[in-house]
Amino acid sequence: MKTDLIALATRYIPVLDWGRSYSRDALHNDLMAAVIVTIMLIPQSLAYAMLAGLPPEAGLYASILPIILYAIFGTSRALAVGPVAVVSLMTAAAVGQVAEQGTAGYAIAALTLAAMSGAILLGMGLLKLGFLANFLSHPVIAGFITASGILIAASQLKHILGISASGHTLPEVLWTLVEHLGDADPVTMVIGVGATAFLFWVRKGLKPFLIARGLKPKLADVAQKAGPVAAVVVTTLIVWGFGLADRGVRIVGDVPQSLPPLTLPSFDVDLLRALFVPALLISVIGFVESISVAQTLAAKKRQRIDPNQELIGLGAANLGAGFTGGYPVTGGFARSVVNYDAGAETPAAGAYTAVGLAIAAMALTPLIYFLPTATLAATIIVAVMSLVDFSILKTAWRYSKADFAAVAATILLTLGFGVETGVSAGVILSILLHLYKTSKPHVAEVGLVPGTQHFRNIHRHKVETDPAVLTIRIDESLYFPNARFLEDYVLGRVVEGGPIRHVVLMCSAVNVIDFSALEALEALNRRLKDMGVTLHLSEVKGPVTDRLEKTHFLQDLTGRVFLSQYDAWVALTAAPPPAKAAG
Amino acid sequence: MKTDLIALATRYIPVLDWGRSYSRDALHNDLMAAVIVTIMLIPQSLAYAMLAGLPPEAGLYASILPIILYAIFGTSRALAVGPVAVVSLMTAAAVGQVAEQGTAGYAIAALTLAAMSGAILLGMGLLKLGFLANFLSHPVIAGFITASGILIAASQLKHILGISASGHTLPEVLWTLVEHLGDADPVTMVIGVGATAFLFWVRKGLKPFLIARGLKPKLADVAQKAGPVAAVVVTTLIVWGFGLADRGVRIVGDVPQSLPPLTLPSFDVDLLRALFVPALLISVIGFVESISVAQTLAAKKRQRIDPNQELIGLGAANLGAGFTGGYPVTGGFARSVVNYDAGAETPAAGAYTAVGLAIAAMALTPLIYFLPTATLAATIIVAVMSLVDFSILKTAWRYSKADFAAVAATILLTLGFGVETGVSAGVILSILLHLYKTSKPHVAEVGLVPGTQHFRNIHRHKVETDPAVLTIRIDESLYFPNARFLEDYVLGRVVEGGPIRHVVLMCSAVNVIDFSALEALEALNRRLKDMGVTLHLSEVKGPVTDRLEKTHFLQDLTGRVFLSQYDAWVALTAAPPPAKAAG
Repeated sequence: MKTDLIALATRYIPVLDWGRSYSRDALHNDLMAAVIVTIMLIPQSLAYAMLAGLPPEAGLYASILPIILYAIFGTSRALAVGPVAVVSLMTAAAVGQVAEQGTAGYAIAALTLAAMSGAILLGMGLLKLGFLANFLSHPVIAGFITASGILIAASQLKHILGISASGHTLPEVLWTLVEHLGDADPVTMVIGVGATAFLFWVRKGLKPFLIARGLKPKLADVAQKAGPVAAVVVTTLIVWGFGLADRGVRIVGDVPQSLPPLTLPSFDVDLLRALFVPALLISVIGFVESISVAQTLAAKKRQRIDPNQELIGLGAANLGAGFTGGYPVTGGFARSVVNYDAGAETPAAGAYTAVGLAIAAMALTPLIYFLPTATLAATIIVAVMSLVDFSILKTAWRYSKADFAAVAATILLTLGFGVETGVSAGVILSILLHLYKTSKPHVAEVGLVPGTQHFRNIHRHKVETDPAVLTIRIDESLYFPNARFLEDYVLGRVVEGGPIRHVVLMCSAVNVIDFSALEALEALNRRLKDMGVTLHLSEVKGPVTDRLEKTHFLQDLTGRVFLSQYDAWVALTAAPPPAKAAG
Repeated sequence: MKTDLIALATRYIPVLDWGRSYSRDALHNDLMAAVIVTIMLIPQSLAYAMLAGLPPEAGLYASILPIILYAIFGTSRALAVGPVAVVSLMTAAAVGQVAEQGTAGYAIAALTLAAMSGAILLGMGLLKLGFLANFLSHPVIAGFITASGILIAASQLKHILGISASGHTLPEVLWTLVEHLGDADPVTMVIGVGATAFLFWVRKGLKPFLIARGLKPKLADVAQKAGPVAAVVVTTLIVWGFGLADRGVRIVGDVPQSLPPLTLPSFDVDLLRALFVPALLISVIGFVESISVAQTLAAKKRQRIDPNQELIGLGAANLGAGFTGGYPVTGGFARSVVNYDAGAETPAAGAYTAVGLAIAAMALTPLIYFLPTATLAATIIVAVMSLVDFSILKTAWRYSKADFAAVAATILLTLGFGVETGVSAGVILSILLHLYKTSKPHVAEVGLVPGTQHFRNIHRHKVETDPAVLTIRIDESLYFPNARFLEDYVLGRVVEGGPIRHVVLMCSAVNVIDFSALEALEALNRRLKDMGVTLHLSEVKGPVTDRLEKTHFLQDLTGRVFLSQYDAWVALTAAPPPAKAAG
């Protein structure tokens, strides 16, 4: 009983498992990783909070308790949880619909969204609904991420130009940018464009540059990661030194010096209702992003990720964000890879990062008073441009037109109508395309390949056929979307074609026959009987037979069920091969 | 060119085909059938109009032009088009939401609904979208028809009791009935209960009774079909003779003596928007009902029904109803079977029926002035009770729990929340259940059956396995809902189990690999590579291979693609059989 409880607790609280064998080595590695990740996270957290339309401290708050809660409940040893670009954009879109940016209501709506998302993720985890994330097909995710990257970059241009713009779709954002282009501030532009160019160079050119100058690759790597911090420090000093804040350059300004505050999500029913669908979408998108990263990193160490436990971990993290002044969080790709590369061995590394960020929130916020928002925008633009990848369009087009349609529709709808419409339409479209495809399955009329026991498509191969025997191979499970199709196809074929006396359905690729398909088969059997034609089945799989045996169908069937198509051929054709007599 | 035009015209206007060979014999048979069907249709049309909340003449109008238009454009030679019970109920539910029963707006909304439904059906036919009807799975239709039967019968009880009641869900109807039970009119109840009992007896007992008394079965059959007419005549005479209309018995009253009027549907955008979803549901339900009947009857004569042309025929019929004071119509089961049994040979029988009904509309309407509504309610109740069939619940339960869930949910939601919610929820639930099932496909670890080249499930059969080779057979196409499942399953299995060096995916039941599944396979390949495990495929189908060859996957694959699983076994296991050397 007691051991059962421990097993149960260990299952739902993985920290009880890895925490017991925590070694001195692991502590050292985790601490090292935490320092590197903390440095990287400070500007990133501030920038993503700005993207979400929130004050910069919200980004720090969203990185502290969520990391600790994920460390306790999550299964990935390397995942770093916190604000990420796409979820920040989705937060801005969702909260922007219910509150004005900059108001107290906006911050409350954002943390309520986090709490709802946490509850949804937790519920999905406890009900083991992790499979729901599968309905975001790869083309939809790829299209969505690319379109989001473009939307995010476009939405940050206003900070680079020093003007105001708004909107949650690309036409809106571009239109308001163009409208205010005359107000562009030259000083801000110099800082913004300079920071962007610098950061792009850091990303692409700094490491080879340093290595060429004799620096060790590992140190060059650290220098590259410190690039955004350097941009922050330098531009802050420039703004402070030249008094640019008084000359129109927008700065971060006052940020409260405190630990994350204890906050309560709103329980206003109208607000909860308005945020429900966005919270669901954010949960699923966040989960998919997070689990992809977690699985990639886990596989490298032959570790296992439990998707349902991941839901619980992310759920706890988002609830934590909701109660400490944050906004929706998830496992981010960039920070997790840095964490992993820096040698993090256990989720404790995340906890140490949280401590580092807490210290930053308490002690360092006055230092960023003069940090220009243009620099933060530059870090966002450089980060998200790596998400934009149109090659998926070409790859999908080559592979399958249906997948291409899903990518293209998701990209266009996300850009044109916003993130929620884009991703919802993408999911619905993928499901409809799949249903459409299976509703018209590949069906082949087959004949015997001479000298063998194989049956092949009569239109592709030279095969023997018998005008009285029509054999049809169905390359799809039989279920309601295609149930009537088969009936129509077979009846049409029998009406048009010659002296058919037997119809054989070859079921080697039929994995399931559902109730609708069973009814359709019964109807087909009756209708063929009315026409004086006998219906047979061949190569029916075990599980399908088991199910058919629970019904009257096999008794009512006018013909027989043959183990193999060759048996059917031998039994039904007028001229059986000499080796075997007709059944 | 000219013959092409004729072929095209014949395809879309089937009357041009059968009309040219119309014989004297066919004329005679069609006329006989028309007389019988006309007699049966008069009370039925009045009753269904009442069910739809419309004045009785609307039922006659809806039976005249639609029948003629279907005769021109439809492909079934026996289908009788007109008002049917379920569509009448759906009309009442839809129109009741936008107009008050008894007002001019109500009748206009009803004919607008018919015109919209006609346009939708016609559009679906021209775009060849007939397959959409497949998404109404058999369990959903069966549950919906049963629940509708109950709802219809309950809604007619008020006429039997002589009280008023309303509502579009079972609780509403029953509640308002109970509320007004004190107002029940005893005389109306005698007529209503008497007519119901008589009609039930006619249906079940009259034919055996007459045959036992020496009547020929064919005549007994005609007598049975004339039962409702007898009930109408007798109760009308009773009400007239005893002056019961003045004593509280509700009667049909004045019905205009005229041919169907020319009417125009409304083009009010708000109305069209409000009626769009109901019109779509009515179209699809009507189409499914109609095509089932048409196919059943056509199969008996080895005739072909073209589903897309049926859509055009039904679309024309509904447009006709919309422009001649009717309401949505479809091919009814009862009337079509009567038409067929009475010997109708061509759609011309329908045209003659239309003439008969037109005469009735012009000449006979004064005769039904004293017809009590209780009698019409009785004919409806007796007709719809044959639709109610709970055995589907038991059958579906035995066959598959998912199908049972779809039936049960459709019945409960239709009864509890009305027809539109019921059928929509049923469709969505069937799709979700299907997606859920395919998202967790049957997967088996297989081993070699000793002495053969067959591979079977290691948990069901005594088979040879090799601890270094994990072979997994997937019994489902690989696509987005299950793409991640396979990845999780294989990675989990590799992490937990022993010294695995090779993973073989046996793809004999994989009909499709979509782009998401391809990405998942690529990820699986990379992750297994990270773990030092090689990934192989076996028994990949031709079309699947064709598609994979368009990608880099086969080049990147760490292992090989084997033609058969046995080849894979021979190549990968340490101890190959003597007959063949390891690959």
